[in-house]
Amino acid sequence: MERPLILIVNDDGYEAKGLYAMVEAAKDFGEIVVIVPDVVRSGMGHAITMNEPLRIKQYREEDGIRYYRTNGTPVDCVKLGQRVVLRDRKIDLVLSGINHGSNSSVSLIYSGTMAAAIEGSFEGSRSVGFSLLDYSPDADFTAATYYAKKLIPQLLATDFPPQISLNINIPKGSIEDIKGIKLTRQTKGYWAEDLVERIDCFGRPYYWLSGYLVDQDPHDDTCQWALTHNYISIQPVQTDLTAYQYMNNFKGLEE
Amino acid sequence: MERPLILIVNDDGYEAKGLYAMVEAAKDFGEIVVIVPDVVRSGMGHAITMNEPLRIKQYREEDGIRYYRTNGTPVDCVKLGQRVVLRDRKIDLVLSGINHGSNSSVSLIYSGTMAAAIEGSFEGSRSVGFSLLDYSPDADFTAATYYAKKLIPQLLATDFPPQISLNINIPKGSIEDIKGIKLTRQTKGYWAEDLVERIDCFGRPYYWLSGYLVDQDPHDDTCQWALTHNYISIQPVQTDLTAYQYMNNFKGLEE
Repeated sequence: MERPLILIVNDDGYEAKGLYAMVEAAKDFGEIVVIVPDVVRSGMGHAITMNEPLRIKQYREEDGIRYYRTNGTPVDCVKLGQRVVLRDRKIDLVLSGINHGSNSSVSLIYSGTMAAAIEGSFEGSRSVGFSLLDYSPDADFTAATYYAKKLIPQLLATDFPPQISLNINIPKGSIEDIKGIKLTRQTKGYWAEDLVERIDCFGRPYYWLSGYLVDQDPHDDTCQWALTHNYISIQPVQTDLTAYQYMNNFKGLEE
Repeated sequence: MERPLILIVNDDGYEAKGLYAMVEAAKDFGEIVVIVPDVVRSGMGHAITMNEPLRIKQYREEDGIRYYRTNGTPVDCVKLGQRVVLRDRKIDLVLSGINHGSNSSVSLIYSGTMAAAIEGSFEGSRSVGFSLLDYSPDADFTAATYYAKKLIPQLLATDFPPQISLNINIPKGSIEDIKGIKLTRQTKGYWAEDLVERIDCFGRPYYWLSGYLVDQDPHDDTCQWALTHNYISIQPVQTDLTAYQYMNNFKGLEE
């Protein structure tokens, strides 16, 4: 059997510790190509670069792994992989991460990591985002790497339905702290109180996004429940946003 | 009854013709506040600004309408409205648009216009994105304005379920060309062949995103069908991305 072709992308940029944890977890399972943003691109959602040209540059080759960086977004990294670097080759697995920070609940909607995984699924690749619940630049990826390494061969052996990706979140802690792996659904919630005002040296106000996640969904089948109880959360993700259950609420607008 | 409070945002920036079409359609129905990006921010998806501070500046006041522009994304515009400009006031309706270009099918996932509408729904406002199927900067918004003006009082009288927004797409053409309004579901599809290589004056390659939408869903209940047949498409939008129907495909990953 041919070695699987694995594309690794992220939203934390080419210097992120989590990127090298992802490479470490994947390197024994196929041919690896890395394409990542040249700056930190957290919270980019499904942004694409439409108003300026994209650039891409190889910055390293080591142990047979080629590393590229681009001025594009996480989603652009996947497009550049499919269209430019790996032109015409079938990508067996897109891995996005390992992200510094959670992509559970509604954070999934804002996540560049998961948007890149979703983009991979649009083109028919198995596609998976990995996130560790630790925002720190020097987060400890030991347990995340251990579990990613266990999961990657299983992911390569799994048939993914069309346009379905996986959102995998890993709790903070040691390998022994983690109790197991659960399939979960997205926790209902929202981000609250999220702009902090400061005054610059010229007396002008500016604002930083901040806030916290409000969990509106205290049930034991959610990602938040699993993570709070030290389980890894795996969530199948789709992108039909139609609110089928509420069609009738808007029937009166038809004519 | 108090005048409704209406926040208008967009992704095409403060100079967009579509913004002024949106204001024209809404101005008789409430107190209007406009907050828009200071540059074109198409294709931004649900991006938020996390790595630099946000600025906001009033640039105009006319007919009682205040206009602000910001260095933030479309989603940031909604957050700045809720947290800074309209602090503590209940926003009755968030209108995003009128966008220059379609947000049907999978374009919804990339859309800054719809991400801003979704963000409004997270905070409990009725929230609606309007898009015209014409990317041109000098697109004719006559029919779009006419129909938006008809719909806005109906939208203000409709109870929106929690975290549900509307994606309204309007075909190109005259008022008479439009056959009616249909509730639709999101067309399955993807963007194909989307990077064009060019060479700059220094011999270095660069890439532009391009491509076309592939419609994989030829049924008469979709947004693409409605728009192709000259109907306005109204789509209720939700943000639980869990692929409930495919949970069993991934059961083997649990432990």
